[in-house]
Amino acid sequence: MSDLPSTETLVLERDDGWLTIWLNRPDARNALSAEMSSELAAVVAALSGDRSIRGITFRGKGEVFCAGGDLKAFRALMREDVSKAEVVAFSRSAGELFHAVNTLPQVTVMLVHGAAMAGGLGLACAGDMIVATEDAKFALTETMLGIPPAQIAPFVVQRTGIAAARRIMLTAARFDGREAARLGIVDKTVPDVAAFAAVEAKIRDSVRRCAPGANAITKNIVHAAGRMGPEAMLDLAADGFAECLLGEEGREGVAAFLEKRKPRWT
Amino acid sequence: MSDLPSTETLVLERDDGWLTIWLNRPDARNALSAEMSSELAAVVAALSGDRSIRGITFRGKGEVFCAGGDLKAFRALMREDVSKAEVVAFSRSAGELFHAVNTLPQVTVMLVHGAAMAGGLGLACAGDMIVATEDAKFALTETMLGIPPAQIAPFVVQRTGIAAARRIMLTAARFDGREAARLGIVDKTVPDVAAFAAVEAKIRDSVRRCAPGANAITKNIVHAAGRMGPEAMLDLAADGFAECLLGEEGREGVAAFLEKRKPRWT
Amino acid sequence: MSDLPSTETLVLERDDGWLTIWLNRPDARNALSAEMSSELAAVVAALSGDRSIRGITFRGKGEVFCAGGDLKAFRALMREDVSKAEVVAFSRSAGELFHAVNTLPQVTVMLVHGAAMAGGLGLACAGDMIVATEDAKFALTETMLGIPPAQIAPFVVQRTGIAAARRIMLTAARFDGREAARLGIVDKTVPDVAAFAAVEAKIRDSVRRCAPGANAITKNIVHAAGRMGPEAMLDLAADGFAECLLGEEGREGVAAFLEKRKPRWT
Repeated sequence: MSDLPSTETLVLERDDGWLTIWLNRPDARNALSAEMSSELAAVVAALSGDRSIRGITFRGKGEVFCAGGDLKAFRALMREDVSKAEVVAFSRSAGELFHAVNTLPQVTVMLVHGAAMAGGLGLACAGDMIVATEDAKFALTETMLGIPPAQIAPFVVQRTGIAAARRIMLTAARFDGREAARLGIVDKTVPDVAAFAAVEAKIRDSVRRCAPGANAITKNIVHAAGRMGPEAMLDLAADGFAECLLGEEGREGVAAFLEKRKPRWT
Repeated sequence: MSDLPSTETLVLERDDGWLTIWLNRPDARNALSAEMSSELAAVVAALSGDRSIRGITFRGKGEVFCAGGDLKAFRALMREDVSKAEVVAFSRSAGELFHAVNTLPQVTVMLVHGAAMAGGLGLACAGDMIVATEDAKFALTETMLGIPPAQIAPFVVQRTGIAAARRIMLTAARFDGREAARLGIVDKTVPDVAAFAAVEAKIRDSVRRCAPGANAITKNIVHAAGRMGPEAMLDLAADGFAECLLGEEGREGVAAFLEKRKPRWT
Repeated sequence: MSDLPSTETLVLERDDGWLTIWLNRPDARNALSAEMSSELAAVVAALSGDRSIRGITFRGKGEVFCAGGDLKAFRALMREDVSKAEVVAFSRSAGELFHAVNTLPQVTVMLVHGAAMAGGLGLACAGDMIVATEDAKFALTETMLGIPPAQIAPFVVQRTGIAAARRIMLTAARFDGREAARLGIVDKTVPDVAAFAAVEAKIRDSVRRCAPGANAITKNIVHAAGRMGPEAMLDLAADGFAECLLGEEGREGVAAFLEKRKPRWT
């Protein structure tokens, strides 16, 4: 079990192999400040090699999940003494954070209440599953500020496809949890925050039945599918299969099945 | 404000930064004749550098949106003296037209009534948004004529994914606006043509709140997402973000927000 | 008309240019044994050049469509004397089978009743159309055995997208035909097996109206769309269009249309 970095803007709760990451800047509606972004990046980096954690839940303290980027940070980037390279690096680091969340070996669950706006929606779309309250508010309002939802777009496209993504972004559309579910952005809606616990417990139970290494490799294959050509996919998949089957998990999983007992990872 | 080419088969209407392109061959059910295709291509080319136009609506005069390709043109291509290279060039120019519409920097709205068949459906699927009457008829009937919906397929796949696209094409399925909405081909259905005006007015209002340059760059990023690998996406997105933030729009948009006033582009 | 290989684990029925492939190991719930997989691969290879067959239906004898892979085969691969290269080859051949089904020039219909689990779901997702009973059971349970649904994942992603695919796989979710339809995995549900006949007859009629060569080229273009860049797509599509239009099918199809008669392939 690895140590996680200590954080000011996040509350980390471990429970039986599951980590909950609470965004904890409720007074700022959990906007992704430079500090919060860099703490998230550090925690995610620490988790990427940690097999003691099976799953990770992201949620927000206070009224909302995450209100998006930090406008003051945007303003600071416009100062005369800031080079274009610094702005590019700022944007790239936001995209790197979403990409790191998207490719975490653990299973990631996003519990969205209140609102997931702009970068908050990008963060949510990088998760494996999104559960949202029916009345949660979603929007990509960047273009109203004269900037594109640049690093966010790929993760929204990943969930809802090109057609819905371009409509949402080009009109700065506002929509709720129900509509987000219709668009495939949200996997499941719940009536209110109180209903998160039961849904999440079920997800945890499901995930625990699955082998952690096999899940990590599956995620990697899913991300490659659709982008890689068929020949490269065959090789990537065959390698992943062989690695798991001949590894500890495959031997244990198949043996447990034939012996009608639970495998060790459950 | 650039001059648009004068056209015989299209009626162009400008209104407060919005252009309506009417397909105007109602007696031929707005079939994409060589002349109409080349006029469309010329108008779209002129628009691609025109920032005075925020959005473009495509619709059809008469009974239908667009009945598809022009069978007489196909027949003419079968004459003994036509080379394969000429047929390839004919097909490629249709695909180039759809691609040019698909990548217009402005926001494009397709108002479909009556029917969008074959190339008419291809044209519609190249738009950012499709609003259709519930009873509008859709079909890709090319394979019944012994030819593939070749240049149309990528734009249908872009809207409905591979699974639905192959089913529709391989069976020459006919379906209406309601079913098209279920498949993600249509974004919104309306009961009849009279309802287009109100829906379109709302879309125009939404688009006008968004910065034109940021919208153009967003569209470009969305088209790259899913096809590009993660590293290339990070770079493309970071460049787009920096260009907008440091450009006129970003400065104006962020300033307007902090000063609680509307930005100049609205 | 080519000869098809004779098979022990499959029943092949030809009827008026349509082939039904029955998975016929009902006592083993039609699990994909080495023998059945290799017979399927041989039949599919023989079909890939056979223009006398317009369409192919896959279905299962007995209680289920297909219960997935063969656990005994997995176990055998874990023996000390089996090299990693042999395991890689085993996995690759499963992927090659799904890929070969996915790219058959004929139209493929999957009639799923009872269950389509693991590799059975992979096989189904490689078809052009899936019709399932409302109560059919679906799941990718590999990760519970410590192995990834490696070769299956690309075909599930092809049908339902990355977001739903990762959720299903990482939680080993079980779902029925109705939910599969909601996810886009299934095209149409029917109340029971008795209803397959009428639905399939309609599909056959639709497919017979379409030219076989044009359908094969269409399928090829659809598979390339989304992965290829726009320029390469324009070329691939233009080539396919020219080949069909100038070929026998295009000439016959356009002539038949103008002469108001049915083309020869119907």
